[in-house]
Amino acid sequence: MDQPALIFDINRQIKDVSMQMQSAAGEMTRLTELFGELKGKAAVLAGEPMGDGQEDVVDPWTVESTSEKGVDYDKLITKFGSTRIDDALKERVQKLIGEKNPIHHFLRRDIFFSHRDMGPVLDLYEKRTPFYLYTGRGPSSEAMHLGHLVPFIMTRWLQKVFDVPLVIQMTDDEKFLWKDNLKDPEETHRLAYENAKDIIACGFEENKTFIFSDFDYVNGAFYKMVCRIQKLVTFNQAKAIFGFDGSSNIGQVAFPAIQAAPSFSGVFPQIFNGKEKIPCFIPCAIDQDPYFRMTRDAAPRMGLLKPALIHSKFFPSLLGPKGKMSSSINESSIFLTDSAEVIRDKVLRYAYSGGQATEKEHKEKGGDCDIDVSFQYLRFFMEDDARLEQIRQDYSSGKMLTGDLKQELVTVLQKLVAEHQQRRAKVDDATVKRFMTPRKLNFKY
Amino acid sequence: MDQPALIFDINRQIKDVSMQMQSAAGEMTRLTELFGELKGKAAVLAGEPMGDGQEDVVDPWTVESTSEKGVDYDKLITKFGSTRIDDALKERVQKLIGEKNPIHHFLRRDIFFSHRDMGPVLDLYEKRTPFYLYTGRGPSSEAMHLGHLVPFIMTRWLQKVFDVPLVIQMTDDEKFLWKDNLKDPEETHRLAYENAKDIIACGFEENKTFIFSDFDYVNGAFYKMVCRIQKLVTFNQAKAIFGFDGSSNIGQVAFPAIQAAPSFSGVFPQIFNGKEKIPCFIPCAIDQDPYFRMTRDAAPRMGLLKPALIHSKFFPSLLGPKGKMSSSINESSIFLTDSAEVIRDKVLRYAYSGGQATEKEHKEKGGDCDIDVSFQYLRFFMEDDARLEQIRQDYSSGKMLTGDLKQELVTVLQKLVAEHQQRRAKVDDATVKRFMTPRKLNFKY
Repeated sequence: MDQPALIFDINRQIKDVSMQMQSAAGEMTRLTELFGELKGKAAVLAGEPMGDGQEDVVDPWTVESTSEKGVDYDKLITKFGSTRIDDALKERVQKLIGEKNPIHHFLRRDIFFSHRDMGPVLDLYEKRTPFYLYTGRGPSSEAMHLGHLVPFIMTRWLQKVFDVPLVIQMTDDEKFLWKDNLKDPEETHRLAYENAKDIIACGFEENKTFIFSDFDYVNGAFYKMVCRIQKLVTFNQAKAIFGFDGSSNIGQVAFPAIQAAPSFSGVFPQIFNGKEKIPCFIPCAIDQDPYFRMTRDAAPRMGLLKPALIHSKFFPSLLGPKGKMSSSINESSIFLTDSAEVIRDKVLRYAYSGGQATEKEHKEKGGDCDIDVSFQYLRFFMEDDARLEQIRQDYSSGKMLTGDLKQELVTVLQKLVAEHQQRRAKVDDATVKRFMTPRKLNFKY
Repeated sequence: MDQPALIFDINRQIKDVSMQMQSAAGEMTRLTELFGELKGKAAVLAGEPMGDGQEDVVDPWTVESTSEKGVDYDKLITKFGSTRIDDALKERVQKLIGEKNPIHHFLRRDIFFSHRDMGPVLDLYEKRTPFYLYTGRGPSSEAMHLGHLVPFIMTRWLQKVFDVPLVIQMTDDEKFLWKDNLKDPEETHRLAYENAKDIIACGFEENKTFIFSDFDYVNGAFYKMVCRIQKLVTFNQAKAIFGFDGSSNIGQVAFPAIQAAPSFSGVFPQIFNGKEKIPCFIPCAIDQDPYFRMTRDAAPRMGLLKPALIHSKFFPSLLGPKGKMSSSINESSIFLTDSAEVIRDKVLRYAYSGGQATEKEHKEKGGDCDIDVSFQYLRFFMEDDARLEQIRQDYSSGKMLTGDLKQELVTVLQKLVAEHQQRRAKVDDATVKRFMTPRKLNFKY
């Protein structure tokens, strides 16, 4: 071959090889993700600590604990630099909302246990200065599970006592960018609408609540805010906060700004009449805190207000308190679509027990409520404090057996889920559409 | 399955996947080595220096040449892996559009010099199969300069001869993310509308042209496509293609997908009736090619068509052919807002000359048209081939002096800019709004 022909031929080969490399790299990424997922499942099932260190891992994509008692929330508060919701703060909430109206058991029982700037939010309420609530959901599956309800139950209660607007972000873009098995944005977009039905079934008021899918709502004022935030965060910073690396896709790297944006009232001009500085208050699980640490860092650099937060503990996996409930492991979760029969079966079969090996031994030594998943679930969903305390005493002393404790839980969950299903059945597509249409809410600004 | 069986099954899967990972890693190592070898061979054949230092730098943000004659476009074609627009291809265009209608002097004079898949575009035209044109502009300043006109003049001609829809992207988001001095998205958004007036003044037909600002148009179908592309590009890949590093902001890292998206007809459902596979043809300066290499790699992985491209050379700086005209250096540019007086002054004062130091020496040795910026500008804007050739001969032989050559250029540019200003003055806000409203164009799909 002459020189030009050689060059042509080499360039063709380079192209070939580089295409093969790309596909090999793609395969490697797929396998690495699959490997991570399987390891995660194995850890949940076997109760093995994952990773190398002794530290709990808590970020928006991973919750792993090294201890049988689950995540060490005291350490997490120190690590994240948030503040414990202490008795004084709870008493202040109680005073503000009036003594005849008890504060929610999620607050009484430290299920929401940590906050950032909740004090100033209460100041606002006291002075009747407007603020708004913001929470969200990543629609990765058709059926939501019990754990997914927790932030919405809290948010519903906060909206009721404070009487403020609420925005709920459905991050269908996030789930598309992260989930290998979701190949089409239309699929997560559809799941956003399906999940919205479960959220509406929690009892939010239509004229005070705006639910939006990112695929619908990223545009105009929202997109401008996203770019303003993105401009303030380098790849290295995002890497440090979220653990991204070179194999993260560029949509993942940029996504945190999308979850940050609803913290600023300017992205909802139809609700806040274009006002940029209406304060925002965010109830969420503690694993979402990294997004809002980033947001709170960016806010003053844009001349905007830092959002305030309250953080919940995780709703534990049925298989044990080391991990959180996961939609991808059927045995770990009670779904909102489960029948009474399935609920009974899952609790009796899988609920990780703090009881002793034999009845004799149990009656002697008693059960351990701190690690017993059935008891933990009752703390989330049994509203009656006196009854819960009685169960705690009876189980700890050995008077109550594991089977009886599980039966208590079955009764509570069957009622909770059945009522949810009834409310959800009444949420039709037209209702969802109304909640998800950008519009003025029942508040003046 | 019960818990032990589940654990056993997961562990088996983990073993499988880890073996697959090992073999994929081996394949990756082999391919990487092969790739390095081939690149080395190619460099030796092409006579390129193998280390850094001696190379021209050409990417969307930097154009720097090490030679007095400017960027070495032959090397660039080799490096980028594109194809020269050769005489055969030009003849084919000439035949297709009819002999009495000469092909544009940008093609005749190799100002558009490189392409990807232009042949298949001509096949489409021959078979009267629909395709569309896509080009764009980053609105970083109020006043556009002569260099900015080049892709639009070419695109205008292509639209006229092919009679196809055209979409023009104004990347106001990009300019906001990149420019430190632009602190507010509203500012680049405003510049997008200002620059659109200059673009419209190039003579595009309203019912065949859609101009859009990213801040207006990123949403819905467009945003879904952006996420689809983002999911296919890792940070490492973006780093390799665009030179990003840890200090790049996360908006910059994600931006390439925004410039890629208009290459797919699905993002313009109002124009293409939801059809996803109308082929796209992109005229642009060669520095934009990295975006479309990425796009062409992603396209088949989404089951979509690779866009075709033609690439222009850079419009040189008035100060010399090593760099391209830059809005941020006033002396380097003739702006479309410059008066006849200013144009005259800039050309006489700053235009880098290929002439000799004294009149005597010039008459003996002649001028060097290859490095003379005035002559280069005439190649872009003097349409008369015979007159241009006469000037080349006279200047090279020394018969024509630098002052006379500059006067030729002043005359051409004063006419060009004055006519542009007249057309632009007629473009009112209502016209801009019509061009920039998402709508059906005058084509059926």
